[in-house]
Amino acid sequence: MDPDALDAVDPLRGFRERFVIDDPNLVYLDGNSLGRLPIKTRERINQVAGQEWAADLVRGWGKWFDLPQRLGGKIAEIIGAHPDEVIVCDSTTVNLYKLAHAAMRAQGGRNQVVTDALNFPSDLYALQGIVHGLGGQLELVASDDEISIDPSRIADRLNQRSALFTASHVSFKSGFMHDMGAVTETVHAKGALALWDLSHSVGVTPIRLNEWGVDLAIGCTYKYLNGGPGAPAFLFVRRGLQDRLQSPIWGWFGQTDPFAFGLDYAASCGVSRFMVGTPPILSLAAIEPGVDLILEAGIGAIREKSRSQTAYLVQLWEKHLASLGVALKSPPDATRRGSHVSFGHPEALRIAKALIEKMNVIPDFRAPDNLRFGISPLYATYREIHQGVERFAEVIRRRQYEEYSETRPSVT
Amino acid sequence: MDPDALDAVDPLRGFRERFVIDDPNLVYLDGNSLGRLPIKTRERINQVAGQEWAADLVRGWGKWFDLPQRLGGKIAEIIGAHPDEVIVCDSTTVNLYKLAHAAMRAQGGRNQVVTDALNFPSDLYALQGIVHGLGGQLELVASDDEISIDPSRIADRLNQRSALFTASHVSFKSGFMHDMGAVTETVHAKGALALWDLSHSVGVTPIRLNEWGVDLAIGCTYKYLNGGPGAPAFLFVRRGLQDRLQSPIWGWFGQTDPFAFGLDYAASCGVSRFMVGTPPILSLAAIEPGVDLILEAGIGAIREKSRSQTAYLVQLWEKHLASLGVALKSPPDATRRGSHVSFGHPEALRIAKALIEKMNVIPDFRAPDNLRFGISPLYATYREIHQGVERFAEVIRRRQYEEYSETRPSVT
Repeated sequence: MDPDALDAVDPLRGFRERFVIDDPNLVYLDGNSLGRLPIKTRERINQVAGQEWAADLVRGWGKWFDLPQRLGGKIAEIIGAHPDEVIVCDSTTVNLYKLAHAAMRAQGGRNQVVTDALNFPSDLYALQGIVHGLGGQLELVASDDEISIDPSRIADRLNQRSALFTASHVSFKSGFMHDMGAVTETVHAKGALALWDLSHSVGVTPIRLNEWGVDLAIGCTYKYLNGGPGAPAFLFVRRGLQDRLQSPIWGWFGQTDPFAFGLDYAASCGVSRFMVGTPPILSLAAIEPGVDLILEAGIGAIREKSRSQTAYLVQLWEKHLASLGVALKSPPDATRRGSHVSFGHPEALRIAKALIEKMNVIPDFRAPDNLRFGISPLYATYREIHQGVERFAEVIRRRQYEEYSETRPSVT
Repeated sequence: MDPDALDAVDPLRGFRERFVIDDPNLVYLDGNSLGRLPIKTRERINQVAGQEWAADLVRGWGKWFDLPQRLGGKIAEIIGAHPDEVIVCDSTTVNLYKLAHAAMRAQGGRNQVVTDALNFPSDLYALQGIVHGLGGQLELVASDDEISIDPSRIADRLNQRSALFTASHVSFKSGFMHDMGAVTETVHAKGALALWDLSHSVGVTPIRLNEWGVDLAIGCTYKYLNGGPGAPAFLFVRRGLQDRLQSPIWGWFGQTDPFAFGLDYAASCGVSRFMVGTPPILSLAAIEPGVDLILEAGIGAIREKSRSQTAYLVQLWEKHLASLGVALKSPPDATRRGSHVSFGHPEALRIAKALIEKMNVIPDFRAPDNLRFGISPLYATYREIHQGVERFAEVIRRRQYEEYSETRPSVT
């Protein structure tokens, strides 16, 4: 299939020009690690720094103070939640720590956390720290193929000691997507709470937290939401749980009346009790235009294009890469896949370096042997995907990776 | 004394033009809440967004990855620490949580935390949360006059159950400055660790953490360091303690090799183990030019000007404000004072509103009856201080505050 013909009929093709495209020849297949800069975001950053900070000075807080809630309300719309169930603050891992710790303590005698081996390592680390601090056990559901998790394994691992199940909706490495509704139902049947990490699915696949009965969620804003490097994360607590859970980290932004400067903590009502300190406004304000673009395009249309583009990529793999020793390390079934596709090759690290430095293609290396091609449908073109695969094949055929070292670079 | 004559001989007068001064007639006396925007910071923000994010995309991490350590090294120079003892990450309160929690757990059977009633409420809240979680007691050393803390009271409260003493070096409300070296010595004599919050002193008064034997510290970058609204905070752990303390929040940025994506947490060596998640780069990068300005001016010269300017302000209070019912709520002795001066008046809230909305003067209201005049010596002029006092007196004399409501605004 001709990529240009596919691009010509893409209903979302107009969105690419809403982003700053510095080098039109760059094949950027890493929007799942760091999304591109929306043009409006550049304007917004200039406004926040050059106008609100510079001229309004401390009065700027009149505009900034409710940003965590206002952004939360917009993200809620993307993930099928009520606007008062989501706030933006801190990092993804700090948010996981707060919610998982709170859930463990609310679950009384139950002291076991169940997760899976495809979860993002930082999530695993936070859980290990919580279990180390509170006492209890962390149970890891294994993957048979390093690509997917068999849901029956989760059910087998849950029991009357399970306080919490938590996993990444879409796995950072393989792109495997859990059936969030079905797994949450299983978790609830065993009396545990369900906490989902939406980092690799938010903004690119439909999520219906309320409909699926999800208790807790966290997620990243700098991937498909295009919020900027390290932008603050979001967290979700369903209405019925908010006033039953207590954050382990008590701070003035989670206090019911911070500007009374009272000596004793009293938690805010609602989800805001999970805020802690003053949020980083430049990074926080930069999130909004990217979220607005997702809402404008509509998550249904985005998912449609994402499925079509990952399927196209898998077709090209079959045709051009499989015979070159490249393995598919993502689920072949598009309904069980997020918006990135992983490939395995023993020389993945050096191939990634050759693609970046010689071929003007940016994929993403994940140790030990994975190459991820992330597709962010608002700006990725079929032409880019086609070029990415062509150049990938060329690097292998001509053994162009051989001139690169095997030292890992420091890139998220 | 003629303010213009004082400005003319001010050795730091050249630094004001290094900041964006949008309205030259604005009397800005709130640099202790939100410092002004350095001109270089505006350029740096444009570079990070418009160049590094937009064009380098994920490759930008090559420049961003060591920012927490590089900025930490520069701040270390300002606070008398080794460069490998300081990092910049998370908010002040999250950092306090991590360090105080770690200290409590490292102190074995001791389970008491001592602090004082002038400490910033968010610090008190974090400590209350820790004690709630770990068990133990929080002891509050009272202030006799709501202005200062008698150091003998601290000694009296410490005992063999005390794990940790923590306080604000300079109090957010009264500006009282502890004798950090002497208090730390007392704390150590009782076998406790000392954790100082430097938020209201860093960048404006000499701090010698190593010389004073301080164990732990945290601090804010958006006040006298001019890092921008809500910019990430710093934390300090002295070398000898770093590998004995364990953060309660385990995350990939505190892992020894985050890009190996191993399933098991292993804490980094050194202070970096207190990092958690991906830092917010726009807000983080914006900190550096302000820190560079402090280093260029020199903390000795800054403190000299700060003492001179707060003394000038107190003189003007005696002459123009005391007779109007305005009380001095800061230590009269400049050696026990930071760089802001607090005044008490029953109508402080409405006076603040009148000053801001009618008089183009920005002070800072702190409930219930405090008006803070913060002096950031790199850009504050004697002329500004003089005008601030003049207009303050005028608002009271003409009862101009009477048209404003008593509802508190949402401003930090």
